[in-house]
Amino acid sequence: MWSACNVKVRDCWAVTSVTLRRCLKLGAAMAKSKFEYVRNFEADDTCLAHCWVVVRLDGRNFHRFAEKHNFAKPNDSRALHLMTKCAQTVMTELEDIVIAYGQSDEYSFVFKRKSNWFKRRASKFMTHVASQFASSYVFYWRDYFEDQPLLYPPGFDGRVIVYPNNQTLKDYLSWRQADCHVNNLYNTVFWALVQQSGLTPVQAQERLQGTLAADKNEILFSEFNINYNNEPLMYRKGTVLIWQKVGEVTTKEVKLPAEIEGKKMAVTRTRIKPVPLYCDIIGDAFWKEHPEILDEDS
Amino acid sequence: MWSACNVKVRDCWAVTSVTLRRCLKLGAAMAKSKFEYVRNFEADDTCLAHCWVVVRLDGRNFHRFAEKHNFAKPNDSRALHLMTKCAQTVMTELEDIVIAYGQSDEYSFVFKRKSNWFKRRASKFMTHVASQFASSYVFYWRDYFEDQPLLYPPGFDGRVIVYPNNQTLKDYLSWRQADCHVNNLYNTVFWALVQQSGLTPVQAQERLQGTLAADKNEILFSEFNINYNNEPLMYRKGTVLIWQKVGEVTTKEVKLPAEIEGKKMAVTRTRIKPVPLYCDIIGDAFWKEHPEILDEDS
Amino acid sequence: MWSACNVKVRDCWAVTSVTLRRCLKLGAAMAKSKFEYVRNFEADDTCLAHCWVVVRLDGRNFHRFAEKHNFAKPNDSRALHLMTKCAQTVMTELEDIVIAYGQSDEYSFVFKRKSNWFKRRASKFMTHVASQFASSYVFYWRDYFEDQPLLYPPGFDGRVIVYPNNQTLKDYLSWRQADCHVNNLYNTVFWALVQQSGLTPVQAQERLQGTLAADKNEILFSEFNINYNNEPLMYRKGTVLIWQKVGEVTTKEVKLPAEIEGKKMAVTRTRIKPVPLYCDIIGDAFWKEHPEILDEDS
Amino acid sequence: MWSACNVKVRDCWAVTSVTLRRCLKLGAAMAKSKFEYVRNFEADDTCLAHCWVVVRLDGRNFHRFAEKHNFAKPNDSRALHLMTKCAQTVMTELEDIVIAYGQSDEYSFVFKRKSNWFKRRASKFMTHVASQFASSYVFYWRDYFEDQPLLYPPGFDGRVIVYPNNQTLKDYLSWRQADCHVNNLYNTVFWALVQQSGLTPVQAQERLQGTLAADKNEILFSEFNINYNNEPLMYRKGTVLIWQKVGEVTTKEVKLPAEIEGKKMAVTRTRIKPVPLYCDIIGDAFWKEHPEILDEDS
Repeated sequence: MWSACNVKVRDCWAVTSVTLRRCLKLGAAMAKSKFEYVRNFEADDTCLAHCWVVVRLDGRNFHRFAEKHNFAKPNDSRALHLMTKCAQTVMTELEDIVIAYGQSDEYSFVFKRKSNWFKRRASKFMTHVASQFASSYVFYWRDYFEDQPLLYPPGFDGRVIVYPNNQTLKDYLSWRQADCHVNNLYNTVFWALVQQSGLTPVQAQERLQGTLAADKNEILFSEFNINYNNEPLMYRKGTVLIWQKVGEVTTKEVKLPAEIEGKKMAVTRTRIKPVPLYCDIIGDAFWKEHPEILDEDS
Repeated sequence: MWSACNVKVRDCWAVTSVTLRRCLKLGAAMAKSKFEYVRNFEADDTCLAHCWVVVRLDGRNFHRFAEKHNFAKPNDSRALHLMTKCAQTVMTELEDIVIAYGQSDEYSFVFKRKSNWFKRRASKFMTHVASQFASSYVFYWRDYFEDQPLLYPPGFDGRVIVYPNNQTLKDYLSWRQADCHVNNLYNTVFWALVQQSGLTPVQAQERLQGTLAADKNEILFSEFNINYNNEPLMYRKGTVLIWQKVGEVTTKEVKLPAEIEGKKMAVTRTRIKPVPLYCDIIGDAFWKEHPEILDEDS
Repeated sequence: MWSACNVKVRDCWAVTSVTLRRCLKLGAAMAKSKFEYVRNFEADDTCLAHCWVVVRLDGRNFHRFAEKHNFAKPNDSRALHLMTKCAQTVMTELEDIVIAYGQSDEYSFVFKRKSNWFKRRASKFMTHVASQFASSYVFYWRDYFEDQPLLYPPGFDGRVIVYPNNQTLKDYLSWRQADCHVNNLYNTVFWALVQQSGLTPVQAQERLQGTLAADKNEILFSEFNINYNNEPLMYRKGTVLIWQKVGEVTTKEVKLPAEIEGKKMAVTRTRIKPVPLYCDIIGDAFWKEHPEILDEDS
Repeated sequence: MWSACNVKVRDCWAVTSVTLRRCLKLGAAMAKSKFEYVRNFEADDTCLAHCWVVVRLDGRNFHRFAEKHNFAKPNDSRALHLMTKCAQTVMTELEDIVIAYGQSDEYSFVFKRKSNWFKRRASKFMTHVASQFASSYVFYWRDYFEDQPLLYPPGFDGRVIVYPNNQTLKDYLSWRQADCHVNNLYNTVFWALVQQSGLTPVQAQERLQGTLAADKNEILFSEFNINYNNEPLMYRKGTVLIWQKVGEVTTKEVKLPAEIEGKKMAVTRTRIKPVPLYCDIIGDAFWKEHPEILDEDS
């Protein structure tokens, strides 16, 4: 019925007979009603109320991406800073993110417990984060990789995880930071063995098989004169982003008395921004220092 | 317990007493076991087996984005072609997408019924699409907007919808194309009234209130001498992307007999690519012409 | 605030001062608003539209239940008929069930594809089925187990499974019937070995380990003179319940002419009822004979 | 293929040719593999870890059920005690329920936060509760309704709600108790007006429209000499079931010295049972008195 009308609209759009009008009227109504039932197939994916909502992103195929773009091993500070720039953009552009944590090619974003952003729909949380992060990655690439052109647009996958209370949320973040520690210690020794001792990757891997943290520290110290604890905190701890007050000197046109009208003035404004910290978040100290992050009523 | 060990690792990493070793061993094991329970909070979001999985993306705040980047009204062909370029990248980079449909600032991607990509997890489908699309949008921007710099990285939101059979899937796509038709007809008249007749947006809106499709066609014809059916198909129908064989002439090094070794040779290879079509997908003709798209066993 | 009011209501309910009234008014309003937010924690569990919804029940701990109530082995026809009576009650009391299939201590119920019963909420489907089945089991027990008192109220667990099309639904039912066949063949031989040959359960199990269907048929025939194909269909095929017209002779008071007023009259009415069949549903024959079951528009 | 084999099995089960064996072997394997894929359509419905899981049951059509079984109005203590007997059976038969609350024809069951019963699958929680409750209702009916036969098996619907912390759980229970209070006060006045003042139900309803709690208390006191606060607590507060130690005198055969061997002995054992309380659970007092209920580590 509707397609019949539709054909008429397309073929004989200038016809104005009463019949056609009636058909068109019907057609318009049916167009909406006939297909709109497909909206009923959308599932509700609301995140449980009063819970922390975490979105974690992981780079897709970043092993290959790092190779192609000549990332330094074991850590490329340009890449890590670019990741953090993207995470800051996500925090600034989206709503209700209270803390983010990143390491390697992953970043986790924590939405506040009582956020009602997009009615807490999981799909909204994760696709907004994933797309904003990905577009920012390309947009800001040149600011961090001056001499290295971006060869292709990277992908990220994301997921939503819901944590019912502060303890489980802190344990989630601790899990990611412990993961950073374990991986970075391993990678630091591994690449020292490859880059400085000339082992093949397979040899380096075999050398490290079964070693404990203390063994790896010893190898670094005795063979490479590296005290792992002096390695950059950003590598060892990852990056924590929290909102902090930042005093900014901005130049701004201000309404002024007539005699100095039109002059610009330097004004110090206080704003809050997502600021990177490189610190332990497994122990209690961090959370005691920043109680507002988990404060239920904030 | 673990943090105590951890502290020791950090502070006294060179100590090698048996006690510390034991503690470290324990610590390493506990580090994993203590926090890893947080993985249990991830929900399973598998899409129902044997169903079509649709991911639809929508530009976030694209009204503002279009203003800031001086998009032509009612349609900006650069913007539409960029969207399609991104969609093609998504289809090429990801797996199992059989058809895509785009219009305005939205694009829908259909994964094949029996896809087992990432075990059919909804979050994987939608975040991969959203992030790949978004990074491509920035990456390819300059190819479509030569004189218009990109001012900030755009965001997109996505969702997953599951359709159990061909009819509901086709109705979904029809719904989007009917939406394209209704909006584009409206916008074409609206902007003609504003741009050519000098009405304010509010006046144009009032003029169009309650009008039917035929009324709008009449206004276009009698007042602006526009036959709506002659408007570009891409504007009226949106863009359909399907996989088609494309003969490509590529220049390639080939193993050749000794006498001509090292010479390059022009070779015609047949590849399949996501090709844009601007056609009706509401009627049966399209689906009859391309039965492989919905073929259950493909 | 509200609890203060509440205390007053309880302690001083006869007080009628304006202050108390105001407090009570406020209290009543707050009672609703203060706690009612907890409704937001209910998740939506709508079954995907246009799909078959199956609820399968399984007896809880029926191994023990069968022991305690002296069920005959390998099949107790009283128990099977009672299960079917419960399933018929479920079909009659609830809405939109088009077919049910039962064997052993399980029963599956199929709701029609376009059912909108309780807005297709999975929890409603499964708890209505589970509770109605369980209460019926106790209610009708005595009709089937005259000499065996029911010792305790049995439990059942249920689940919802959604099938997107006829093929997957038929394969689900085939899966259950194939399961019935495999188990019943095994059990028939097993109990023959135990009951007639005097093997212990462990010995019988060992004897059957690794045997194929044909082996089991042979054992039955050669050792026990049992032709498995002559065993009752209900045991070998399970029970299918479908709606069929049943002519009933009912005795009913009818409005009659004065001279015979008050007399009762035998009236034949045609009703539809869930009728048990014991037949193959794996092959096509059944579905061709009863096309209305899967008919999309029924 | 398989059905061909299957037909052979059924028709020619005694045939033992190598061909048939091969076919049967294949058939058996295929029987499993061919249909078993349907298990993939089962959705995971795990309740979020570390959260309280509540199952609430409601009587289906209990307005009609109460009429048919001559329940006393506004409260039938037999019916309420039967509900509580069923709830106790549910708590005793199932695992991990720490508290239950019932009023009218509903009962809520709270599973402990860290329960891993049936891997926290929502469908298991709610169908086990619904079926056990329903079968118990019929099983114990005669103990509470001596002179009133049960006319048909009742149904119940159930749902699962997940609460992330103690506050939300307590607010859920408060919500139900507040609901009990509001309804019971209303019903008490309503039925007094109907039963004692001879109003029709419609008249009683009109009389109560817009009245506050204090108004209803006044009507009860001035017109019926009823002090609402003296009404039975079970009616006003509903029933709370918690686990409490109960000293039981049981007669039991015990291993004894030879001279008194075989004699029975009265032994006092302490057991825990679900014990009904009729008290306020909205205020803090109850939770302070029974801290073990919400204790995270219990």
